Amino acid sequence: SKVDFIQENAPEKIEIKTSLLAEIDAATRPDIVIASSSSGLPSSKFIGKCTNNPGRILIGHPFNPPHLMPLVEIVPNQKTEKSSVETAVQFYKSLNKRPVVLHQEVPGFAANRLQAALCSEAYSLVSRGIISAEDLDACVTNSLGPRWALTGPLLANAMGGGGGTDGFRHLLEHLGPATEVWLKDMQDHAFEFNKESLDALSTSVGEELKGKDVQSLEAERDRLLVEILKLKNS
Amino acid sequence: SKVDFIQENAPEKIEIKTSLLAEIDAATRPDIVIASSSSGLPSSKFIGKCTNNPGRILIGHPFNPPHLMPLVEIVPNQKTEKSSVETAVQFYKSLNKRPVVLHQEVPGFAANRLQAALCSEAYSLVSRGIISAEDLDACVTNSLGPRWALTGPLLANAMGGGGGTDGFRHLLEHLGPATEVWLKDMQDHAFEFNKESLDALSTSVGEELKGKDVQSLEAERDRLLVEILKLKNS
Repeated sequence: SKVDFIQENAPEKIEIKTSLLAEIDAATRPDIVIASSSSGLPSSKFIGKCTNNPGRILIGHPFNPPHLMPLVEIVPNQKTEKSSVETAVQFYKSLNKRPVVLHQEVPGFAANRLQAALCSEAYSLVSRGIISAEDLDACVTNSLGPRWALTGPLLANAMGGGGGTDGFRHLLEHLGPATEVWLKDMQDHAFEFNKESLDALSTSVGEELKGKDVQSLEAERDRLLVEILKLKNS
Repeated sequence: SKVDFIQENAPEKIEIKTSLLAEIDAATRPDIVIASSSSGLPSSKFIGKCTNNPGRILIGHPFNPPHLMPLVEIVPNQKTEKSSVETAVQFYKSLNKRPVVLHQEVPGFAANRLQAALCSEAYSLVSRGIISAEDLDACVTNSLGPRWALTGPLLANAMGGGGGTDGFRHLLEHLGPATEVWLKDMQDHAFEFNKESLDALSTSVGEELKGKDVQSLEAERDRLLVEILKLKNS
């Protein structure tokens, strides 16, 4: 009864979450918001056995590494009350997180869909032998990553178009035809999760990893991540 | 005759580049590398009138803002000599750039294909009303961007899998099925460059831009970009 907000982080299995959520829902005051962490599974898939108050259940999805990354995705299901969404937004803000709200359930939510879109093309380019894993990663860390650390893709488009809504629209109308050619070619060569593609991809990643210690790379990444987030808040 | 390297930055129109390249090719020593800047058009499309030495022509594609971003994509065509690729790599390195080499021409090259993949899904999510433009941009600047500023997507996967080639492969095999569900859903709702979608998207971007001065945002981005690049080199 002293609980004010519940963050559930069980494994992403429908059966586990279904029985766990039923238990939490039954055992807690109906006004307490229950945020379920899931990296893509919408909550409507696992609230079927909640009979106390399923309207206070939503997705609250932090992003790796969660103790550093500001983003939390809030995804209500069709039964979620608006007040529960608002409570979750305020809760995450109070932890200095940056909550974003999705207005409809979609598999993968927003950030992981965006990530999957980019990664899928990365896997394709490397498995086809067009670019090495090391150079592919360098592409991202030396252009898109630093850009997107500071400016989201839509604001970047508006900037590229010279500013304003008209600038954004002008840029899209101008780039659209070329982009459609690229997207069509990407779709024609979409990565498939089969043994042959995975072999080619893993071999190139293996070459990139040669001589690198992933644990120390991770520590260095976290150190620099803190510095970048400090810079942005300065 | 005192020229050692040519960087051509004419507008991305096949006719313009075709006649300009023919002129440059005819007027210069055949051992001088000619790098053409193009954001997606492969050089095989516009070297048809070069008769002196088309083998020294390749794509050298810098990334916006080019005076700050380290990335340069080098894309040979089928006739480009290996020595020309090597000369271009050394030239860009001497300018403290980070050249990457594509081994085959593909429309959009690497970075712009990756960007188009992510942007296309961003346009879809916002035009469908699933998330606002402002929250979509916040998704990227508060998670994917800072991560990719430091670690490319493939190395990040290897880290997520616990390190090593096996870690990478394990993660992909583990995430593959969920990712395929997301990708299928994304393909079913792919953004189309028509008036209705552009209207919905531009309206949401317009709300994000309200009260913002794009020029001062750009100046602030460039200032922070320099700081991030300094951090990474420290």
